[in-house]
Amino acid sequence: MKKIINSPNDIVQEMLEGYVQANKDKLCFSDSSSYVIKKRSINNKVGIVIGGGSGHEPLFMGYVGKGLADAAVIGNVFAAPTPDSILAAIKEVDCGQGVICIFGNYSGDVLNFEMAKDLAEMENIKVENIVIKDDVASAPKEEKNNRRGIAGDVYMIKMLGAASEKGYSFAECIRLGEKVSGSLYSIGVGFNPGTNPVNGEPGFYLSEGMMEFGLGIHGEPGIEQRKIASANDISRMLINYLIEEITQTTLKKTAICVNGLGSITLMELYIVANNSRRFFEEFDFQVSDMLVGSFCTTQEMNGLSITALLLDKELEELLNEKAISPHFCKGV
Amino acid sequence: MKKIINSPNDIVQEMLEGYVQANKDKLCFSDSSSYVIKKRSINNKVGIVIGGGSGHEPLFMGYVGKGLADAAVIGNVFAAPTPDSILAAIKEVDCGQGVICIFGNYSGDVLNFEMAKDLAEMENIKVENIVIKDDVASAPKEEKNNRRGIAGDVYMIKMLGAASEKGYSFAECIRLGEKVSGSLYSIGVGFNPGTNPVNGEPGFYLSEGMMEFGLGIHGEPGIEQRKIASANDISRMLINYLIEEITQTTLKKTAICVNGLGSITLMELYIVANNSRRFFEEFDFQVSDMLVGSFCTTQEMNGLSITALLLDKELEELLNEKAISPHFCKGV
Repeated sequence: MKKIINSPNDIVQEMLEGYVQANKDKLCFSDSSSYVIKKRSINNKVGIVIGGGSGHEPLFMGYVGKGLADAAVIGNVFAAPTPDSILAAIKEVDCGQGVICIFGNYSGDVLNFEMAKDLAEMENIKVENIVIKDDVASAPKEEKNNRRGIAGDVYMIKMLGAASEKGYSFAECIRLGEKVSGSLYSIGVGFNPGTNPVNGEPGFYLSEGMMEFGLGIHGEPGIEQRKIASANDISRMLINYLIEEITQTTLKKTAICVNGLGSITLMELYIVANNSRRFFEEFDFQVSDMLVGSFCTTQEMNGLSITALLLDKELEELLNEKAISPHFCKGV
Repeated sequence: MKKIINSPNDIVQEMLEGYVQANKDKLCFSDSSSYVIKKRSINNKVGIVIGGGSGHEPLFMGYVGKGLADAAVIGNVFAAPTPDSILAAIKEVDCGQGVICIFGNYSGDVLNFEMAKDLAEMENIKVENIVIKDDVASAPKEEKNNRRGIAGDVYMIKMLGAASEKGYSFAECIRLGEKVSGSLYSIGVGFNPGTNPVNGEPGFYLSEGMMEFGLGIHGEPGIEQRKIASANDISRMLINYLIEEITQTTLKKTAICVNGLGSITLMELYIVANNSRRFFEEFDFQVSDMLVGSFCTTQEMNGLSITALLLDKELEELLNEKAISPHFCKGV
């Protein structure tokens, strides 16, 4: 698969330039050579920074906006942003009320965001890191801290963005982040790899007619390879896994996100969404909100993930708050 | 490329069910077995119906919403909706002020929408059909009426949706539609075909390393096959073609849409958008608005199109009006 780029070295800078130019009424760079994108006007509130490697668009850059993140700090393709650039993003959004950083559970990201937190604290900025670990296929329940972050990022950004906009304190944001973490369950399946735009390599190898069940968003291996099945069967397999995780809860209302990993069509995603909703209902969950689209991708990977966010009253209210960015729009 | 569906016969119904379920607060079916989707509440204004074959999602179903279309009538994959279903959609949105139907210039669509117009007029509903013919690669200037409709659909829907919401009369809507038609120029390029989800067939054949320059959104052949080039070179080629068409005009302000045809990544689209904006500026156009994303696709086809909509004061104002649907958000 040929990538339509110029030089591999300039991919991220050129993408971000195009993105900022297309949305220049609302977004700008922190400085001209930076990979930090921020809102043009930032309210006096707890600041929200999101970030991670590029290659997963619209995540992360697409979710800087009203009721979402205040800034995104972007790394090279599939690589963590540097501590310095994370620190720059933190300083951009700090209004003296503290800053929450949201990112996926990958070693490079964890290391660099932790380092940036230390650097910011040395400058008397309160920082808390919220690490997304929603991928139930990536480690057993007992090792939840080893789980990867996948499309659940989007709900965490939505929730913290809404909360900070509503005037939640730093401590309340941390409490909310923990609640969302405990209510967030995702699992993915891959049918064909995406191509790394830097080196042209596929993300993984899969025999014809097989799917990687439980794969990660960089093509990390999942639970096992299975034969590709119908939308209905795939939905059931994925939801069975999720349900097994969430039977402990008393909450019976859920939001679901059916996320495309790149080249899968909206047509297929809505068919899976239709099946998935029914299966959740069979398990006595009320699906009160559905997001369907390609929110967190891996280049042109063919595959999808399903995320469930269990909702109590607070989470449901925050989910319905206004959120507007170039690639996310809700509650308007 | 395996499609994640259930039965080929049920694709459209299941997709639309999933879509309506995911957006049931704002959208509903005209009746349960119908391929007509409409807004839950329709203002007293000129009605806007859009439609065409499915397989191009989010077009058309994704653009029913506030400041956009009032109803969409969907055909089977790459097939025109039936006259009966178009008539049903027209009746759903008619408030006595007339109905504008917007669709691409394909023989099946033209035939069936014309037939529906006749049927509606027999029931004393004023109907005007606006046929999109923006693809400059599909016929020479002198045969503009033979040109295909591609991603320009999105701007036409946005403009007419905004105008009708603002209270434009039926006659004013028709005048506006003609103005937009005369200001709308698109051209596409394809790198890899999409797969028909009904029969599993690729949309076209292309040698490795080649691109189809000027292809249509069903994989119709373009002007010629060329070697795949860089983002910069492809942008220049496409824009040279567009500029050649639009030198007659005195308007020097333009909106551009860089549209992905399916599996191309947002990363690539923003790189192309960045290059494209510069080229328009080299030709002394001011790019005052940019849409970047996959608005009008052909399944997982790899490719992109660029659309320019030249803006006078009226068009610029309408472009900035509020528009909100599950797959389009602007002016909020």
